[in-house]
Amino acid sequence: MPSYKLTYFDARGLAEPARELFHLAGVPFEDIRVRDADGSWTKIKDSTPFGQIPVLNVDGHAIPQSAAIIRYLANKFGYAGKTAEEQAWADAIVDQFKDFFNITLRPLTSAIREGKPEEEIAKIREEVFIPGRDAYFKILNDILEKSKSGFLVGEGLTFADLVVIENFTTLEQNGLANVAEQPKLAALREKVYSQDKLKEWIASRPVTQF
Amino acid sequence: MPSYKLTYFDARGLAEPARELFHLAGVPFEDIRVRDADGSWTKIKDSTPFGQIPVLNVDGHAIPQSAAIIRYLANKFGYAGKTAEEQAWADAIVDQFKDFFNITLRPLTSAIREGKPEEEIAKIREEVFIPGRDAYFKILNDILEKSKSGFLVGEGLTFADLVVIENFTTLEQNGLANVAEQPKLAALREKVYSQDKLKEWIASRPVTQF
Repeated sequence: MPSYKLTYFDARGLAEPARELFHLAGVPFEDIRVRDADGSWTKIKDSTPFGQIPVLNVDGHAIPQSAAIIRYLANKFGYAGKTAEEQAWADAIVDQFKDFFNITLRPLTSAIREGKPEEEIAKIREEVFIPGRDAYFKILNDILEKSKSGFLVGEGLTFADLVVIENFTTLEQNGLANVAEQPKLAALREKVYSQDKLKEWIASRPVTQF
Repeated sequence: MPSYKLTYFDARGLAEPARELFHLAGVPFEDIRVRDADGSWTKIKDSTPFGQIPVLNVDGHAIPQSAAIIRYLANKFGYAGKTAEEQAWADAIVDQFKDFFNITLRPLTSAIREGKPEEEIAKIREEVFIPGRDAYFKILNDILEKSKSGFLVGEGLTFADLVVIENFTTLEQNGLANVAEQPKLAALREKVYSQDKLKEWIASRPVTQF
């Protein structure tokens, strides 16, 4: 079996679906967590392919970019969709999430992190974040409306479900959404978190804000 | 052979790599171009999966999101990388492009489109666009520095090359980069555009600003 090392911050964030795939597949991996505060991130930054994390090392071969990592593991472990068309739909949902993350969520979190004035943050929240989030949630609800399995793609769990529901948890923990008010989205998360092979990890994983 | 219909604006933009994959593979497809101006986009918007284009229809099955479409065709036609690791790297480069597009390029093009004051546009250009573009170009240069084939991944052309070089052309046409000053990037574009199966399409395709 290859040796896997996953390097990311001490957060769920963009790496958690990869960790979940390892747990679902019962495949051991090294869960390396670096930090800004103690310099452990700065120390390795220049050795990463794109100066960013997450990075997955597979027998010493480094793979950057979260979606690429998650798709690679999903393909290996059987969570990428059963047909070429299912794979394309899982990809499309992950890309839609990435658009939401970069276009809708990032302007708000950046403004908060940079300590912008309250008024400016409120404006971004109202004009960018809330409409973008609601449009994204509508897309997910429409997909689940048509789903027979309750999963986003086909008959079973794919990496798209993991990516989407981990972000629900982050939005909720930061007061940016109330997923309980969205029955289909809440049911999807419940369905994923109740997978036998995930339960122990979900119950025991580090609790982080992001 | 399946019936393929690709719907997008009358632009290269996010759909051109998909068109190029059809030409590389010698597979016929319907190249449907809708417009804002004549209402042809508004007319079909609600019938698209995510309210967005491009959309690829394969025997009536709709696939949204540009990267998902391009990866799907690349897998079918043999341009997705030769191993799982090459595929992951092609994916990672496309994700890096998408981050550049959404985080670095979009704020500038949005500000221009919305008619923001000159001063604000100049500030975004200096503080967001130029540093982001240069960091992205450095990543691409570093990859090409190590490449033995001159392509971004492995020994041959992948969809990552198509995505990256089409955007070079758009940046250049809009005064946002001078690719000729970047010998490795210019050589990559030349290498792609001189592929026998692409030449005719490149010479005859509609000339558009984006």
